[in-house]
Amino acid sequence: MSKARGERKLPKRTYEARVPALREALVKLQIALKPAPFSVLLVIAGDDASGKGEVVNILNGWLDPRGVETFAFHDLTDEERERPPMWRYWRSLPPRGRMAIYSGGWHAEALATDPRNARELAHFEETLQHLTHFEGLLTADGALIVKVWLKLSKSAQRERLLALEEDPDTAWRVSPDDWKHHRDYERLSQLSKHMRRVTHRPAAPWHVVDAADPRARNVAVADIVLARFHAHLHALARPEKIKKPGRIVALRPAGLRRLRAFPLDQELSESDYEAKRDKWLGRLNRAVRSAGQQGRSVVWVFEGWDAAGKGGAIRRLTSAIDARDYRVIPVAKPTDEEKSHHYLWRFWRHIPRAGRVTIYDRSWYGRVLVERIEGFCRETEWRRAYDELNDFEEQLTAHGIIVLKFWLHLSKAEQLRRFRRREDTGYKRHKINDEDWRNRRQWSAYEIAIGDMLALTDRPNAPWHLIPADNKRFARLEILKISCQQIGAALEQV
Amino acid sequence: MSKARGERKLPKRTYEARVPALREALVKLQIALKPAPFSVLLVIAGDDASGKGEVVNILNGWLDPRGVETFAFHDLTDEERERPPMWRYWRSLPPRGRMAIYSGGWHAEALATDPRNARELAHFEETLQHLTHFEGLLTADGALIVKVWLKLSKSAQRERLLALEEDPDTAWRVSPDDWKHHRDYERLSQLSKHMRRVTHRPAAPWHVVDAADPRARNVAVADIVLARFHAHLHALARPEKIKKPGRIVALRPAGLRRLRAFPLDQELSESDYEAKRDKWLGRLNRAVRSAGQQGRSVVWVFEGWDAAGKGGAIRRLTSAIDARDYRVIPVAKPTDEEKSHHYLWRFWRHIPRAGRVTIYDRSWYGRVLVERIEGFCRETEWRRAYDELNDFEEQLTAHGIIVLKFWLHLSKAEQLRRFRRREDTGYKRHKINDEDWRNRRQWSAYEIAIGDMLALTDRPNAPWHLIPADNKRFARLEILKISCQQIGAALEQV
Repeated sequence: MSKARGERKLPKRTYEARVPALREALVKLQIALKPAPFSVLLVIAGDDASGKGEVVNILNGWLDPRGVETFAFHDLTDEERERPPMWRYWRSLPPRGRMAIYSGGWHAEALATDPRNARELAHFEETLQHLTHFEGLLTADGALIVKVWLKLSKSAQRERLLALEEDPDTAWRVSPDDWKHHRDYERLSQLSKHMRRVTHRPAAPWHVVDAADPRARNVAVADIVLARFHAHLHALARPEKIKKPGRIVALRPAGLRRLRAFPLDQELSESDYEAKRDKWLGRLNRAVRSAGQQGRSVVWVFEGWDAAGKGGAIRRLTSAIDARDYRVIPVAKPTDEEKSHHYLWRFWRHIPRAGRVTIYDRSWYGRVLVERIEGFCRETEWRRAYDELNDFEEQLTAHGIIVLKFWLHLSKAEQLRRFRRREDTGYKRHKINDEDWRNRRQWSAYEIAIGDMLALTDRPNAPWHLIPADNKRFARLEILKISCQQIGAALEQV
Repeated sequence: MSKARGERKLPKRTYEARVPALREALVKLQIALKPAPFSVLLVIAGDDASGKGEVVNILNGWLDPRGVETFAFHDLTDEERERPPMWRYWRSLPPRGRMAIYSGGWHAEALATDPRNARELAHFEETLQHLTHFEGLLTADGALIVKVWLKLSKSAQRERLLALEEDPDTAWRVSPDDWKHHRDYERLSQLSKHMRRVTHRPAAPWHVVDAADPRARNVAVADIVLARFHAHLHALARPEKIKKPGRIVALRPAGLRRLRAFPLDQELSESDYEAKRDKWLGRLNRAVRSAGQQGRSVVWVFEGWDAAGKGGAIRRLTSAIDARDYRVIPVAKPTDEEKSHHYLWRFWRHIPRAGRVTIYDRSWYGRVLVERIEGFCRETEWRRAYDELNDFEEQLTAHGIIVLKFWLHLSKAEQLRRFRRREDTGYKRHKINDEDWRNRRQWSAYEIAIGDMLALTDRPNAPWHLIPADNKRFARLEILKISCQQIGAALEQV
């Protein structure tokens, strides 16, 4: 962590002489940012009465307000409360080329919990890990995160509070809580220092600024923003090229072995299927309703080979669920709004409210499948994605969301039969195109990527279910059964 | 309104023979819809126990769930409650090429208010007008709206309720309210009949379906959807071409006269400006804070000639407002998500929560300015836009939002001076491009369009304020003064 910055006292005249150049530099920053491939996140956090709001307002005055948005996270709305804690931060993220200022950042909410006992402290530590991970995700994606902590000594804080109380225009800003916090200065100071130490990372460091003199404070913050921005721009001047991937090599051969050893010769007659189907549909209906009544959401993830029958399986599944409770999200090319954000942003958008169901037809796993194989992202990007995906799902399940992941597995021969049948059947012809044939030629590359995915993202909280899909009826019934069992087990655990 | 459809009784065998063809036809509909330039909104409303949920579920089963989303509007979330009533419907609209099914539609919420006295009835009528207007907007934009009313006679309703109660699996669906409504059948029936009559329009008619026999009901609904869809597709086969506009002719010469007669020779010295500015900034700060405390939002709309100083005026304004309370929305080219919706959708998205401020740098008036002049939309489209914009603002102000609209007016000579200065000043050069020069050559066409806008959208609830902007200081002070006065007046009215 950098030491507290800011000169002791900045005379008014010196300040006023410096401001025009700072303003111009900040507006130029915004002009340079507009076409840049990253966003800027500026966190203004700090001790009570250190002037966070003033700094935020002054920066907004210096910047062109059309390229920046300011967020302060007050009480949770009910739409936020019904989703994992980080959802509200994800929805506030600016697209590339724009800047957001966070008054208090996501850190203020964590500090406000004011943990005392062991349980609260453990929860606090966990939250800090989430925040660090969140910032890590964003900086790895290129975002520039500038975190400023405005520091005030206990005596300076007292002076500031008294001065605020004296002026009738600002007296309302001092609450009894402020004085309570002031009396508790040492403890709270230790807590925030600990927070900064834990969430300090080379790519998202804390900049501590002495806030005793407001003018020196303002200039120091602007200087930090400018310095970090130019260093960031400079570092990006020679971006790592995306190379066409060479031969795909397995990271975890065990996954590939699991996939290849998986039997696909199951049989299920039409009559057996029909005898059992309705029973399982009924059970699924009851399972999803119980989950909903308990405010538990269900997220289904369907991945599988082209023509493996994802669409049909989803239809069977949804036939058991009240249409008013579910959404099916087909994951195709991202829209331009989605492209201008982190790749997980488009999935965070659709996280269901408490008690609702979202079914993803293809999913975030595209990152380690098609994007890996086609070279749509860099090797470093798909390599770190396994951890990112695990963490994403961890956040869902920690919030009580039941995550059910299915890989619909197909033999290469059966895929060929289905492709041919599609080409021959009039109203199915739209379902087959050149891309499907191209993917098929990459079969063994995909096998390796699927194997790695299974090995690296098969976790107790969100396990992969391999479904043999050469026999469609068998596959559909398996999915129904596993879904019922998994939902039932998840509801019993609590 | 069409008469109730649906055969008396459909034998199971006939039904099962018809379903496969219906399913195939519905899936083909979705394939044809995907590239089509419109969305499909299917409203399934009806009497209690008429099987709305069943129909919605059956249609979802017949359709490919990946191209359709179902909505039911339950209790308002607090994010919805803090915005005009239609906001929740706007946010649910599907993009072109997709379909949404609305269980109960927006009509169920209106009917649920169950108006009794004169005041409630007046409010109900007003709501129906809003709904009609909403549907009119969407159908004029090309959307296909299919509204189905499932009708059940009093005796059939009684039978259905008893049958539901008998089956332990469905007994929970019958509430005491259902029986209360049943006893009140005649009155509620009259109310919904009245609702259908008022909201019936050639482009969004009600289809009444006899729901006594579930099988006949399901088939009737599917038939209606298919017939309406094909008629719609057929009607769109020869879309009206967008013609390059000819000479722009004023609709309301009075507006043009007002614009041309507007004096631009105001003077304000630097010292006079500075003497007054801080006083007005302080007042504005207090005015916005009072509004916020009362849960009143403020929406600023800035329109004006290129280089008229919108950006500077917005900066001055925002310098008086806490950065955590406002957003500035620069309106440029729509994103592809925005393009796939009604042109007002992108503005509805950003409507502030209660007590917050949104500042639009350019706005929905682009429809009757640049889009009219450049021929980006059809003549019928910009001609009806005046009413649409008035209605949009009416909805905002009816919800208590304070709408402040400014036209920053400039002389042609002053614009030229500013363009030249921008070209000469290094860091301002990005602010001037070929488009600005092209717009300038269209000066008199713009004058006419601006005049029409002023004449047709200057309304007591959201008046236009013409600001003489040849002198930037004068303009900024005027904007501050008028904003204070208008906010003050709006707060006093309540």
